[in-house]
Amino acid sequence: MTNINPETLSCPLPIMDHDTIQLSHGAGGRLSADLIDKIFLPRFGNETLDKLEDQATLELPGKKLAFSTDSFVVDPIFFPGGNIGELAINGTVNDVCMCGANPLYISASFILEEGLPMEDLHRIVLSMEEAAKNAGIRIVTGDTKVVNKGNCDKIFINTTGLGIVPDGVNISASNLQIGDKIILSGTIADHGMAVMTSREGLSFQTQVKSDTVALNSLVEEMLNVTKGIQAMRDPTRGGVAATLNEFARSSKIGIQIDGDQIPVKPEVHGACEVLGIDPLYVANEGKLIAVVPDNRAEEILSVMHQHPHGKDAAIIGVVVEDHPEIVTIKTGLGVNRILDMPVGEQLPRIC
Amino acid sequence: MTNINPETLSCPLPIMDHDTIQLSHGAGGRLSADLIDKIFLPRFGNETLDKLEDQATLELPGKKLAFSTDSFVVDPIFFPGGNIGELAINGTVNDVCMCGANPLYISASFILEEGLPMEDLHRIVLSMEEAAKNAGIRIVTGDTKVVNKGNCDKIFINTTGLGIVPDGVNISASNLQIGDKIILSGTIADHGMAVMTSREGLSFQTQVKSDTVALNSLVEEMLNVTKGIQAMRDPTRGGVAATLNEFARSSKIGIQIDGDQIPVKPEVHGACEVLGIDPLYVANEGKLIAVVPDNRAEEILSVMHQHPHGKDAAIIGVVVEDHPEIVTIKTGLGVNRILDMPVGEQLPRIC
Repeated sequence: MTNINPETLSCPLPIMDHDTIQLSHGAGGRLSADLIDKIFLPRFGNETLDKLEDQATLELPGKKLAFSTDSFVVDPIFFPGGNIGELAINGTVNDVCMCGANPLYISASFILEEGLPMEDLHRIVLSMEEAAKNAGIRIVTGDTKVVNKGNCDKIFINTTGLGIVPDGVNISASNLQIGDKIILSGTIADHGMAVMTSREGLSFQTQVKSDTVALNSLVEEMLNVTKGIQAMRDPTRGGVAATLNEFARSSKIGIQIDGDQIPVKPEVHGACEVLGIDPLYVANEGKLIAVVPDNRAEEILSVMHQHPHGKDAAIIGVVVEDHPEIVTIKTGLGVNRILDMPVGEQLPRIC
Repeated sequence: MTNINPETLSCPLPIMDHDTIQLSHGAGGRLSADLIDKIFLPRFGNETLDKLEDQATLELPGKKLAFSTDSFVVDPIFFPGGNIGELAINGTVNDVCMCGANPLYISASFILEEGLPMEDLHRIVLSMEEAAKNAGIRIVTGDTKVVNKGNCDKIFINTTGLGIVPDGVNISASNLQIGDKIILSGTIADHGMAVMTSREGLSFQTQVKSDTVALNSLVEEMLNVTKGIQAMRDPTRGGVAATLNEFARSSKIGIQIDGDQIPVKPEVHGACEVLGIDPLYVANEGKLIAVVPDNRAEEILSVMHQHPHGKDAAIIGVVVEDHPEIVTIKTGLGVNRILDMPVGEQLPRIC
């Protein structure tokens, strides 16, 4: 029935830890990296994809484009502070702008489950409209597929975004230099804990809300201070811990974090305690981590404080020569411990 | 729990024929158009999206880009003549090149079901690699999500493609002129019937095989004859009948088809008879319909005949002044009947 071509036979399945897909293969941690390194990159690899940035930057004659894709499968589709629709717009806008690009165009592709209430779809579409307007991006092409009841879970949305990288901007996870400062734009773990508490039916005195928001206007303000931002990424799946480890590995340097500088809302802290989850590993959807030259850090921070999405920004650490490719974190008790990559899947279907 | 903003309340659900999503909403026929017209376009509409072409064409300073997205949910994921992976590459390459663009870059986003055999994923990835190589396109960015077992069906793939439209090319479904000739690049219904016979477990003396293939090199040859191709589209969901009706409506002209000129393979014809399906409504994944000026039609046809993907190309009809927005077809018996848009979902999850 199926077409096995000679190339398939000559290219056996690489040796993997698992014979079937595990939830952890989608969690942004070690097993995700394993899947990418052993299955995808050996077949698809090229100089653009191999960089493993969250967006491709493409040279067209006279223009440098940023191009990023994301499929959203969050459960539940409506959660405190947002829904799958605005998440799909904001998430891709953020991936595009993390390389400094100005996001211009976005596609929207829907996989709908037969029987999805039309009212739910409509509310999601309204949120996408509003999110696109807020981010100043235009939805220019789309696609809709419907699958039989039971063959997907309500609605999945893919968005793919396009933007233009300004001249002179060259942001990459591999740029970090000894002495650079690490800036975090605000409180962590809001999105992941909003989804988790909603899914678990937990309620707290103060409701935990998702931070889903588009960060392109904040990035623009930061680039107005200096085009010399070294690296920038939004800590989504795998949280702040995953992003910092990606930076350390790509640049082959060490990172030292001051845990006391990382802002966490009291209600989010409480929810993490109840569920036994470390907020450093929880997804954010409206935060960024920027690595900037030491001598521009205060100036960038002060601009961020003027912006609604950067008012809680803080310098949380520094790039160090010691322990290359390792992230360490010092907590209030004075203990310095290794902050490792996440391994398993703590929080499936968070985005 | 959920955030109902004032805008949602001030924008009630439009009156729809159904309160929930039906399979037909994804079938490319009348209900698909209804969903797009009432739910998506009123909220997302802009001058690019409103054109409802299969790709967005975007003006950047000095460059015109083509941008197209598609999510693939075909069932089964391996079928005679192909699999979901090569379909995902070829389908998006074809959408990009149908406006005359040269496809350059593509993204790949995977939604995987927990428990998917790694071997299946690997075979799919190998096919994507080969298809991308054959089409001369580079996979430059990607994403992977995993959902719990039972929350999707094995694997869904979104691909989004980018290409550059050559100067002087202006292909659109709204360009048709009276007297233009309609060219079909080859036999119809191969893909849809390969999937259907495979799903139904039917076997025939000659196996029905999918025609999945990238058409960009064929399009390039056609454009070498003249940049004056008026309209071009690949007749996927809804088949040849849907594409011809889209042309007639967009250009507000009539189309007269000579049914005897439409090539159908004997085994495909047989499978259609057995399943009671009209091949004119069945999806193709390696065919195009081009509308060309009368005086260049023979020259274009002869170039197509030299190309492996156009060897069975035929002139199947003409653009007429009579019956605007209506497609008619004359069959061997001399009967001239209306070839309408498909309405319901004959063939779910065909691509």
